[in-house]
Amino acid sequence: MAHPPRIQAVAFDAFGTLFDVYSVGLLAEQLYPGKGAALADLWRSKQIEYSFIRTLSGRYKPFLEVTQDGLVFAAAKLGLALDAQRRTQLMNQYACLSPFPENLGALKALKAAGVPTAILSNGTPDMLDVAIKSAGMNGLFDHVLSVDAVHQYKTSADAYALGPQAFGCPAERILFVSSNGWDAAGASWYGYTTFWINRSGQPLEQLDVTPTVQGRQLTDVVDFVARHRA
Amino acid sequence: MAHPPRIQAVAFDAFGTLFDVYSVGLLAEQLYPGKGAALADLWRSKQIEYSFIRTLSGRYKPFLEVTQDGLVFAAAKLGLALDAQRRTQLMNQYACLSPFPENLGALKALKAAGVPTAILSNGTPDMLDVAIKSAGMNGLFDHVLSVDAVHQYKTSADAYALGPQAFGCPAERILFVSSNGWDAAGASWYGYTTFWINRSGQPLEQLDVTPTVQGRQLTDVVDFVARHRA
Repeated sequence: MAHPPRIQAVAFDAFGTLFDVYSVGLLAEQLYPGKGAALADLWRSKQIEYSFIRTLSGRYKPFLEVTQDGLVFAAAKLGLALDAQRRTQLMNQYACLSPFPENLGALKALKAAGVPTAILSNGTPDMLDVAIKSAGMNGLFDHVLSVDAVHQYKTSADAYALGPQAFGCPAERILFVSSNGWDAAGASWYGYTTFWINRSGQPLEQLDVTPTVQGRQLTDVVDFVARHRA
Repeated sequence: MAHPPRIQAVAFDAFGTLFDVYSVGLLAEQLYPGKGAALADLWRSKQIEYSFIRTLSGRYKPFLEVTQDGLVFAAAKLGLALDAQRRTQLMNQYACLSPFPENLGALKALKAAGVPTAILSNGTPDMLDVAIKSAGMNGLFDHVLSVDAVHQYKTSADAYALGPQAFGCPAERILFVSSNGWDAAGASWYGYTTFWINRSGQPLEQLDVTPTVQGRQLTDVVDFVARHRA
């Protein structure tokens, strides 16, 4: 961190980083009073676990389906009845996520400064398209990159390779921004300069790798880029 | 399941399948009253998550270290002080696991019937050696296979390939036995005939694959092999 590489572009993880998935937990709590947090937590864990396992075993399927699979398992594990209506309600919540309050301003500041930006996400192009529109982020990204193009989820190298390919510069010149500790670790291993948005003061993942920078929110990214721009 | 292949050999997952990791949770509860179950659960989740991520990113390190990394993260996440003494106590618990009560009898029955058997585990050879001795299972396996030989954790194909290589027969002729739903799924994808030991009535993992057989304990494996032996 003493002398990080000069930054030419910024790539953002999507869900949890740009888009606030908190509303999913709120709806879960409305549908299953007292169990909403447990359902949202396990749903998220299984969604990610299934993305790992499918990539390890070469059994890709689109993230929307993996997301629904995670929901079905989580509800069954917690003994919660998940009829088609509630399943649809919860899945649809992913289509109308809010941005974190400071995110729009931060993205517009990067745009105004002429910094090339991308989303690099496990989400399918359709999911990302809907989420970007729902969050009012149209036109704020130069590239919207989905791992669906390579049928491998993060943390595989093929997934992270989409960034350097799109920007035409080495990974270390791209600031990869994620609120997921494991994603920041994987991107660091791949060679990105990394910014871990640690909103709630989580402990560092024990993976023998430290993100280049840590911050609390997206405005911290704007400050960092201003100081380390190529 | 109507006509499963004839079985020539049996390969067992180790931790949670042959060796009961329940005592780890008991010790955790003694050390952190009221938090033991949460610590044991999160520890196990992170241990497996880290094994997935390291394999996806080509960052193998031995399972004993991955296990300790999972413990360190889990304690930090739950706000539990983990000094060197308690860390060592918890890690050492892995070295003196008990077998599930019926397991010794089941393994001896397979041995008496002349069925070739193996362990196929994420654990290092040292961890497996200690666990086998601690559980009184010396001499009950023809092969003790550790993924350390290929530096890839399950569910990668290289890990599962150790079974057919050791037995010299196709995967579908080997009954792969695991209490981990994701492991049974990965082995099924690889081509094994699979037996999911579902001791506590867990829901099926939503991975579009169903283990060949489900049972509650290892004696059910003996019955199945007796009926479907090559």
